[in-house]
Amino acid sequence: MSIIVPPESLDWRIKGLPAAWCGDAATLAGAGLSIPGEDLMLPAAVLRRSAMEHNSRWMKRFTELTGTQIAPHGKTTMSPELFAMQMADGAWGITAANACHVRAYRAFGIDRIFMANQLVGRENIAYVAAELRANPDFDFYCLVDSMQAIDLLEAGLAEAPTGRRLQVLIELGFPGGRTGFRDNAEALAAAQRIAESPFVCLRGIEAFEGIVQGLEATERDAKVDALLQRIVGLAEQCYDTGLFSGEAMLSAGGSSLFDRVAQTFGEARKERPFLVLLRSGCYLVHDSHFYQQLIDQLQARSPIAASLGEGLRPALEVWAYVHSRPEPTRVIAGFGKRDIGEDVARPTPLAWARPGPSATPVPLSDTHRVVRLDDQHAYIDVPAESPLQPGDLISLGISHPCTTFDKWKLLYIVDDALVVTGSVRTYF
Amino acid sequence: MSIIVPPESLDWRIKGLPAAWCGDAATLAGAGLSIPGEDLMLPAAVLRRSAMEHNSRWMKRFTELTGTQIAPHGKTTMSPELFAMQMADGAWGITAANACHVRAYRAFGIDRIFMANQLVGRENIAYVAAELRANPDFDFYCLVDSMQAIDLLEAGLAEAPTGRRLQVLIELGFPGGRTGFRDNAEALAAAQRIAESPFVCLRGIEAFEGIVQGLEATERDAKVDALLQRIVGLAEQCYDTGLFSGEAMLSAGGSSLFDRVAQTFGEARKERPFLVLLRSGCYLVHDSHFYQQLIDQLQARSPIAASLGEGLRPALEVWAYVHSRPEPTRVIAGFGKRDIGEDVARPTPLAWARPGPSATPVPLSDTHRVVRLDDQHAYIDVPAESPLQPGDLISLGISHPCTTFDKWKLLYIVDDALVVTGSVRTYF
Repeated sequence: MSIIVPPESLDWRIKGLPAAWCGDAATLAGAGLSIPGEDLMLPAAVLRRSAMEHNSRWMKRFTELTGTQIAPHGKTTMSPELFAMQMADGAWGITAANACHVRAYRAFGIDRIFMANQLVGRENIAYVAAELRANPDFDFYCLVDSMQAIDLLEAGLAEAPTGRRLQVLIELGFPGGRTGFRDNAEALAAAQRIAESPFVCLRGIEAFEGIVQGLEATERDAKVDALLQRIVGLAEQCYDTGLFSGEAMLSAGGSSLFDRVAQTFGEARKERPFLVLLRSGCYLVHDSHFYQQLIDQLQARSPIAASLGEGLRPALEVWAYVHSRPEPTRVIAGFGKRDIGEDVARPTPLAWARPGPSATPVPLSDTHRVVRLDDQHAYIDVPAESPLQPGDLISLGISHPCTTFDKWKLLYIVDDALVVTGSVRTYF
Repeated sequence: MSIIVPPESLDWRIKGLPAAWCGDAATLAGAGLSIPGEDLMLPAAVLRRSAMEHNSRWMKRFTELTGTQIAPHGKTTMSPELFAMQMADGAWGITAANACHVRAYRAFGIDRIFMANQLVGRENIAYVAAELRANPDFDFYCLVDSMQAIDLLEAGLAEAPTGRRLQVLIELGFPGGRTGFRDNAEALAAAQRIAESPFVCLRGIEAFEGIVQGLEATERDAKVDALLQRIVGLAEQCYDTGLFSGEAMLSAGGSSLFDRVAQTFGEARKERPFLVLLRSGCYLVHDSHFYQQLIDQLQARSPIAASLGEGLRPALEVWAYVHSRPEPTRVIAGFGKRDIGEDVARPTPLAWARPGPSATPVPLSDTHRVVRLDDQHAYIDVPAESPLQPGDLISLGISHPCTTFDKWKLLYIVDDALVVTGSVRTYF
């Protein structure tokens, strides 16, 4: 399977392209445009190629060592170029969040899609059904988490036949959590119902453990382990009573606890031939704060992850100009919440450079702190001795890559000298 | 001047389009697609035409009655169709936030652009300079807020000549605020410097009063009035000493305090021939929470606004499906932070409908509250007696339209029966 990167014109629609830009993605990759050399109309979002290549190797090795498969969650980047990198690494498929994602992935030529969500609504069901009907090679999976959801899905499929049974996984959840059966007995009844359905078939048991947040690590891990054990328990029951169609799947694994998932499901796989599917979406680009802390914890906790040496590297940065220094300890820079996500935490100033022929970025001390974002302005507290002045370049590390990615239709791939050597598109 | 709406194909790139969609914007407007009839692949963002038309008339009348001009801030919507509506209402121009916005606006054929920001960086200056050089009709304005910023701008313009002096306004700010001269004496020195420059000329005095937030109304209004009075004072000095080129402008006015701006600057205009320019970006689509409260205050405060009768109406909603009701008082719905902004406050459930031939939305009580957003899931607290169940449709009102707009490449214009009668594109 090869990924289709839709041809797109690179023009005024793309933030950051040089003033007199004319050319395609190949031209862009070869033009030698430099961030410290001020060749782009900043602000711009960049991806460090060396970091992505490192992260790509890291996760390939982690899944090999744990005997797991991965369907990276595409919602993070929605980028066919990055999906191509992940599929080239041996990804089992790509995870989608909703039917419109599935439609985009199909345009990218992706044949195996795990929709980590329920398929709800007439047109959403109709789209997937038509795609399944027209394409025998299309291998699609989605979730169900209530009898009523199964009723609705069956009713939708009765109106929009697929020619084959739709593959579903049962989602488990916990009280106070998000979606998912709170109770394994109810989930087992749903599994029995699915096994007899002419419209759907049971392919696995699933949860999203990443919603367990805001707890101290020990308590969080215990809660996650209990959820994973419930998945194993239900899957064993379903397996032993013949409710699964085809190879039975165990799936979980956001971007921070996939080691626990690999370990718990790996144990279950010793007893029964389960396919273990992780779904981390953020590992490839990683971040400079939220996942950095979580992956540091993971490295400390997981002997397999520790055996890989260095952890993940942050690949994503936003570069912008200093606009003002109206007070000695206050800098205002030319980026804001329309350029960079702040849903988990504000961005972190990483480095600065004074533009010029020999401009070389120098790290900024952590006494530089973004304290507020307006739409297109950032308020940065700086020490009185900070070198920053209007016209200087600064880079920002981000916390939670998802909500920065969706602010850019194109991100620039750069080498370690911050010269543009490629680009990726996004389709949010 | 007529606005150019770039032709775009409507395909898998656009969230929400029906499963078997084929057609252009005109086809979409005439297809009779219904939200309660489940014709779209939800979630989808919609704009109520009747609300926008009301808001459009409201602001046209407000500016007529106050003798002000308006250059609506385009950062809110980045939509050529909405800019066209605003220009047809007599807008003086469109406000931009940065050079990439300017480049997009030029593609829309907009000849008068007020960039409410400084123009910083080699390529950003080079783009604007080239555009000015090539287009004698292009009428461009930007801000300066320090001597150093003027140095940088002059240096950039020396490298990239425009053939005419670049029109700038001096920005005033206040201690602890954002950009802008803290001190009028410094700002006056900058004005004198600009008046003698071969590269730039002084066209006005400006501030963004909307950054005064988080204060009790009386204190906020006093702080805003003091800032506006400083603008008037400096403008009078500059006017009386002949530092302005052309008609001198006084500009301020976000989306919540433009009545104060119109009043204070209107008084100044009685004495000297100032052009008073407002820049509200949010009035056209308004919202269901943040600006709703602020405009209610404005209506109570401003006799002119009160004379217009009904205030602004919220035009923007997101429609989505209920996916799960895992507990009696918890609903999970199929939208999240990748679909809807939460930078000011979480969205507000407005109405619901059970799909079917006679589906008609019914208001939801305010005991339905969104308590958390994940990327594509919303957690909603509901009363035990709430009618919501999986497969139901719900609508969400938003708080701060900007950060919802930039999550959609196309928003559907609907009539009061929620039938699609048009669409607008966005270019973030």
